[in-house]
Amino acid sequence: MQAEPQAFDRVLSSMCTEPHPAARKAAERFLATNPGDPGTYPTISALEDDAVSLLGEITELPEPAGYVASGGTEANIQAVRIARERADSRRPNVVMPESGHFSFQKAADILGVELRIVPTDDDHRADLEAINSSVDDETAMIVGVAGTTEYGRVDPIPALGEIAKDVGALFHVDAAWGGFVLPFTDYEWTFADAPIDTMTIDPHKVGQAAVPAGGLLARSSELLDELAVDTPYLESTSQATLSGTRSGAGVASAAAAMETLWPTGYREEYHRSQRNAAWLAEALEKRGYEVVDPTLPLVAARLPRSTFDALRAKGWRISRTATGELRVVCMPHVTREMLASFVADLDRLEVRASVPVVSDD
Amino acid sequence: MQAEPQAFDRVLSSMCTEPHPAARKAAERFLATNPGDPGTYPTISALEDDAVSLLGEITELPEPAGYVASGGTEANIQAVRIARERADSRRPNVVMPESGHFSFQKAADILGVELRIVPTDDDHRADLEAINSSVDDETAMIVGVAGTTEYGRVDPIPALGEIAKDVGALFHVDAAWGGFVLPFTDYEWTFADAPIDTMTIDPHKVGQAAVPAGGLLARSSELLDELAVDTPYLESTSQATLSGTRSGAGVASAAAAMETLWPTGYREEYHRSQRNAAWLAEALEKRGYEVVDPTLPLVAARLPRSTFDALRAKGWRISRTATGELRVVCMPHVTREMLASFVADLDRLEVRASVPVVSDD
Repeated sequence: MQAEPQAFDRVLSSMCTEPHPAARKAAERFLATNPGDPGTYPTISALEDDAVSLLGEITELPEPAGYVASGGTEANIQAVRIARERADSRRPNVVMPESGHFSFQKAADILGVELRIVPTDDDHRADLEAINSSVDDETAMIVGVAGTTEYGRVDPIPALGEIAKDVGALFHVDAAWGGFVLPFTDYEWTFADAPIDTMTIDPHKVGQAAVPAGGLLARSSELLDELAVDTPYLESTSQATLSGTRSGAGVASAAAAMETLWPTGYREEYHRSQRNAAWLAEALEKRGYEVVDPTLPLVAARLPRSTFDALRAKGWRISRTATGELRVVCMPHVTREMLASFVADLDRLEVRASVPVVSDD
Repeated sequence: MQAEPQAFDRVLSSMCTEPHPAARKAAERFLATNPGDPGTYPTISALEDDAVSLLGEITELPEPAGYVASGGTEANIQAVRIARERADSRRPNVVMPESGHFSFQKAADILGVELRIVPTDDDHRADLEAINSSVDDETAMIVGVAGTTEYGRVDPIPALGEIAKDVGALFHVDAAWGGFVLPFTDYEWTFADAPIDTMTIDPHKVGQAAVPAGGLLARSSELLDELAVDTPYLESTSQATLSGTRSGAGVASAAAAMETLWPTGYREEYHRSQRNAAWLAEALEKRGYEVVDPTLPLVAARLPRSTFDALRAKGWRISRTATGELRVVCMPHVTREMLASFVADLDRLEVRASVPVVSDD
């Protein structure tokens, strides 16, 4: 029970990060509160309003409806749930590029909707033609991803929104990871850029809040009302969240992180991470590995499986894409020094692999 | 943003409480970890195994399957989901006494199962005859409550289990709140007492862990496997939880609280809370209010609405049952002094109500 949480100095695979000091402090102060019971815990409930309002600023939605969810999975499930409730069809479908997060598979399974997974284009982005030929009258929602999990790609959000509008479906954008870097890029991804109905954007990823602090936003409170369930014994009257009791730590730290970092801190962080990603991509390319261009701070590269395993054995927390590429997420805790040390380990492995080994100690 | 979280000295309505110091310390240490990604965060993942194992001890299940959920709502949703996956029927139903938590309404809505809510007996417990006449071939699950939200009642768990067995349904016990007091009572409620398939038991309630730390237990890992979804980009291969990223703080604090308090600390806490509940019940009865006998540390009493509102105006965080009774949960943070102060405020209100008021300042 006295085990130490491992340090972050070798974590390259996570979309979570060390909370910002202000976020950690807020989390610790509000550890014993429950925003799921606003009648009993009004202060944290007010902080949640602040957090949602800041998320609205970031995503260009002046009067946001939404809440701080347990994470992107909950937010995505809830978005699909809204679409299902809105659908006329008894067997509604959700159309998503194959780059969409596996939480939509979970959502489809739980909610009993059909998930239509559509191949992406050569750059791992939603293929508009393929999406267009997958939608039909039963389509309740189209999903666009703004910052994919595997390659950090941004789908053509406005064009996807148009397809959704044409077919009478809701349009959901999953910016769980990308939402805190995209404001500093030229991508079109916000509520102002496209007819987006709901969005996932997680403060506990690049937003540097403490887990659990996902975010669900909706263009109107009517959309959120689709989720409401009566709460007989609480002084509030209904609840739109998936959980009942919720973490005040997550909510308070989300509000504190965004208050502290939006926009200047996040902007600086984005530029630093993006430079790191470019540096790593170049370092890997130089060594002859095939690298997927890091258009956002996420690098994928094809390494031999044995090399990957050897790096993991050295303590590096790395993960792979579905097709087996190394995947390094340049989160706020990932420094140039870490990446240099990672590449140095890689170089040592390659030397060992190419030189006959006499002694192995 | 500098708002203070309110103190707990007037919180009588919550089923959450101040985390035990050991739980708080563990939560703060593991704030930046994610048990939803065990390949990256192995230490917290091992702590989760410890937590599940301790929950198994408490509920008399030697080889427990399960996980630390975001709360009782998630655990209940997941239990219903297991039952739905196991059901032969296309339109399965869940049969539950009306004392069941509203999260089952949420579960039914999300999962598309029919929820059959059955009236309770005169003591607010599941009515076996009524349950029996509500089940049929399409019944996928019967829910029993071990410590109801409104009155702290324990359903006849073994008898409900027999009904479930007879009809071929799974049997779920919701001990979200009761699970950490029941081991010290004579009630039959554990996996050893009855053919229970799944159970909800929340460390973040009477278990004194930090939110979010609910608990889902299953008699076998095969039951849990019904929830598994593939996780393409994580080093683990599948995920049975409803959330993806999860709070290491909740998991670590659950393990720490149970390590510290099970069984001695919880036993002492139960006796103290139960004495407090009995004291409050007697104090209210003496003053002429109708009181529901607190068989567990939860007191319900019929107060005039105006009195209830006046107490809330004085800062007391209290809530009501569906029929409007005052509801006080004697959680670990609730002391005799708090209750005495509450009763003194009640007395002052009653004096004011019965004496003509000349000046109101």
